Amino acid sequence: GQPLVLIAGPCVIEEESRAFEIAAYLKEMTGDLQIPLIFKASYDKANRTSIHSFRGPGIEKGLRTLERIKQELGLRILSDVHRIQDVDTAAAVLDVIQIPAFLCRQTDLILAVARTGKPVNIKKGQFLAPWDVSNIVEKIRSVGNDRVIITERGVSFGYNNLVVDFRGIGIMRNTGCPVIFDATHSVQLPGGVGAASGGQREFAPVLAKAAVAAGVDGVFLEVHTDPDNALCDGPNSLKIDTLAPLLSKLKRIREVA
Amino acid sequence: GQPLVLIAGPCVIEEESRAFEIAAYLKEMTGDLQIPLIFKASYDKANRTSIHSFRGPGIEKGLRTLERIKQELGLRILSDVHRIQDVDTAAAVLDVIQIPAFLCRQTDLILAVARTGKPVNIKKGQFLAPWDVSNIVEKIRSVGNDRVIITERGVSFGYNNLVVDFRGIGIMRNTGCPVIFDATHSVQLPGGVGAASGGQREFAPVLAKAAVAAGVDGVFLEVHTDPDNALCDGPNSLKIDTLAPLLSKLKRIREVA
Amino acid sequence: GQPLVLIAGPCVIEEESRAFEIAAYLKEMTGDLQIPLIFKASYDKANRTSIHSFRGPGIEKGLRTLERIKQELGLRILSDVHRIQDVDTAAAVLDVIQIPAFLCRQTDLILAVARTGKPVNIKKGQFLAPWDVSNIVEKIRSVGNDRVIITERGVSFGYNNLVVDFRGIGIMRNTGCPVIFDATHSVQLPGGVGAASGGQREFAPVLAKAAVAAGVDGVFLEVHTDPDNALCDGPNSLKIDTLAPLLSKLKRIREVA
Amino acid sequence: GQPLVLIAGPCVIEEESRAFEIAAYLKEMTGDLQIPLIFKASYDKANRTSIHSFRGPGIEKGLRTLERIKQELGLRILSDVHRIQDVDTAAAVLDVIQIPAFLCRQTDLILAVARTGKPVNIKKGQFLAPWDVSNIVEKIRSVGNDRVIITERGVSFGYNNLVVDFRGIGIMRNTGCPVIFDATHSVQLPGGVGAASGGQREFAPVLAKAAVAAGVDGVFLEVHTDPDNALCDGPNSLKIDTLAPLLSKLKRIREVA
Repeated sequence: GQPLVLIAGPCVIEEESRAFEIAAYLKEMTGDLQIPLIFKASYDKANRTSIHSFRGPGIEKGLRTLERIKQELGLRILSDVHRIQDVDTAAAVLDVIQIPAFLCRQTDLILAVARTGKPVNIKKGQFLAPWDVSNIVEKIRSVGNDRVIITERGVSFGYNNLVVDFRGIGIMRNTGCPVIFDATHSVQLPGGVGAASGGQREFAPVLAKAAVAAGVDGVFLEVHTDPDNALCDGPNSLKIDTLAPLLSKLKRIREVA
Repeated sequence: GQPLVLIAGPCVIEEESRAFEIAAYLKEMTGDLQIPLIFKASYDKANRTSIHSFRGPGIEKGLRTLERIKQELGLRILSDVHRIQDVDTAAAVLDVIQIPAFLCRQTDLILAVARTGKPVNIKKGQFLAPWDVSNIVEKIRSVGNDRVIITERGVSFGYNNLVVDFRGIGIMRNTGCPVIFDATHSVQLPGGVGAASGGQREFAPVLAKAAVAAGVDGVFLEVHTDPDNALCDGPNSLKIDTLAPLLSKLKRIREVA
Repeated sequence: GQPLVLIAGPCVIEEESRAFEIAAYLKEMTGDLQIPLIFKASYDKANRTSIHSFRGPGIEKGLRTLERIKQELGLRILSDVHRIQDVDTAAAVLDVIQIPAFLCRQTDLILAVARTGKPVNIKKGQFLAPWDVSNIVEKIRSVGNDRVIITERGVSFGYNNLVVDFRGIGIMRNTGCPVIFDATHSVQLPGGVGAASGGQREFAPVLAKAAVAAGVDGVFLEVHTDPDNALCDGPNSLKIDTLAPLLSKLKRIREVA
Repeated sequence: GQPLVLIAGPCVIEEESRAFEIAAYLKEMTGDLQIPLIFKASYDKANRTSIHSFRGPGIEKGLRTLERIKQELGLRILSDVHRIQDVDTAAAVLDVIQIPAFLCRQTDLILAVARTGKPVNIKKGQFLAPWDVSNIVEKIRSVGNDRVIITERGVSFGYNNLVVDFRGIGIMRNTGCPVIFDATHSVQLPGGVGAASGGQREFAPVLAKAAVAAGVDGVFLEVHTDPDNALCDGPNSLKIDTLAPLLSKLKRIREVA
């Protein structure tokens, strides 16, 4: 079968040097493990909990960094767009364009992204059932783009908590799209610490293992060299040097599951 | 105390004549009942479940209709914006600008709306706890706009279902903002009928009564002359001629609760 | 229509004198307000979170206290049974026998209670939908007992939290049974404080008002002269001297809703 | 490490011959796969949704069947008790005594079971958080019984649905108790088909694989030779001849996860 894919990187581009450092590390590690890699980082966190949160370098500077990582390291790049007017600019650099979970129902944004012809990664909204995603897939296919990826990142479970329902993996794979499991956003505690989202980094590996056993096509992991001081999503990001043993394990689970 | 406010109208502008008919009916009815009215209708449903759904007349034609209703009937007008580039155009007509629930975390859109100085109605996302709303209020206030309204419309409860937690009303009123209860979206069954959202119109009155008893400052009701044939949100819209007895009851509950 | 009924009392019988004090207070207050009263207290809390919690005086001593309250104060008495072997003993004293929420699916206990011919109050389990209750009602009616009361006390909403879905009131009233709203257990935070359940006493009045507006036939309130030092369910119990103004309000809401 | 344990059998004893047939099949299959087996069947389903449902042969006849299976096939036997007066009779036959999920908070039943000294399998209630189970474990240990097993079977997720939160596996294993995953009750749709519970048998294997990857010590599976005609829990029971390939896979996942 197909190898397990890894989508990984820091939540947001902080300094360019750190983004490069993480990308280079991921490249080498996934090369050793023979795991296809897509590097992920956001240039603008447009939906932070608080007005006071760090948002990133912005589209211009951020895309320049991503383009350099793409060219110098030869990596495929994924990032997310929040505004229709940014779609074409982003599409010129990105290999995969991601629709954020909160925006997965915004028809115009979805169609604008779909029309670029680039692969589209739909983050499934926290408010959606697995079977609801097929309507989004259909929106993308309606303009002739069949390169759709679905990413599971948990569903609302009471207040300030998410749960992952692994019954949904097969339901979503029935659309014909590959399904990725976002192990680090799935362990967020949205809004759980006042003016920021909390997280339970310690549960990301166990959920990633469960997801691979349940048949996902890839995993999505936010990683950082120093998660406790990350400027975004630190509480749920993984320390980068814990990745290799986890990925080896995920590969072996995929082989036998 | 303050009188109970009514925000009401059709989900979306269909023919102009029908929008006028509904607006005129609401004006007369609320005049009789001495209930302050804000007329609500969308010009573009940008986040319909399916690509095949009716979206409305669009911003240009839709705002023209709303402006005529405003001028000819003397009503205050509320509508929702989905894109930053539409904010100023919409603000020229609208008395209250609404942030859709799915977009309640999009900082740039919120700030653009806040900067118009117009009252902002935040639809609380289906994925938020009541206390999470204060971060959104703070975003609006950060640019000097203190005219913020919060609208409750239910929280995710399992799949394709919402529940209203009336403990949240007081929590949200503690922000100092008036809290409106959206009784018709709260009885939606999101995505519950395949390519559209279902609804339980029959429960809207009972939840509206509970909400007024729980202390909300107003109610939000989608109404239609023929809900079963409405082009959007029919399953949860109320038939317009059922409104007067309900509102009388709500007024009396407010007086004694 | 029928007057609103009050079921109230301390969670558990502590000293006999305190139970009498609360019962006498409730009798006088409801007499003034012309509200039918059923006095409620448990003699054995058989399902406390922790093995170290206070359970009560036990069935023998507890029923003796309840019988004295019944005779000396002329009150109707409700209490709950947890074991089949206790049913007949309890039925000799009680006017209404309550099936605890956790036990609402135990067929033998339900049938044993139903066969006493006494009115049966089913606490709806935290794990049930409103329409699921009709199967329990049918179990009771299957042995010829048609005196069934249903009590709503919230449904599981994520971890350590409950939410009340007021759409359910009408659904349950469609069984033909009166529906009571348990305002104090509905604001429990089950298991929320380690070895005990937490509670949000401050939300009980607002939910009670919403429930009456939504059409319940009565309210159930755990009360105490000193809730902060109550031996069971203190965090969600109401201080007894706050009851009269709340009940006046509930009566007026019922008249107009 | 320890091998993965299997607890399996029919939901309820129907004819004795069928119980034997299933037990013999399981014995042979798990012998081939070198998987430790505990045979499970109930003799009385005391909490069926409807009064009209099949309950089983009763304790006397049922325990006789279980004892014959134990002696003739040399299997360890697990069954559940619902009433304190049945505990000692059941303990004379059973190797593991199970506390049903709805009864997991009934202190007296738990203590009576614990005092037999037999291993106790706690089914975690659908209304409990993973960390709430430690209070139950403590109740059992309080009488000197340290042989406690915890079984996960899903948590309430909206109405008539359960979800499994695999973050909980590690939390519950931190009690020091082995944790079993009940894959067939976790795919129940409680009360979902009117007077019975529905089920989604097709999801049991994927959840079992996820659970083993997440670190459970064993799996619990209700199986039947003809699930579509089973007298209890048919919709979520697995056909017995699908078990061997699933268990092989689970063993391999356990080896690598």
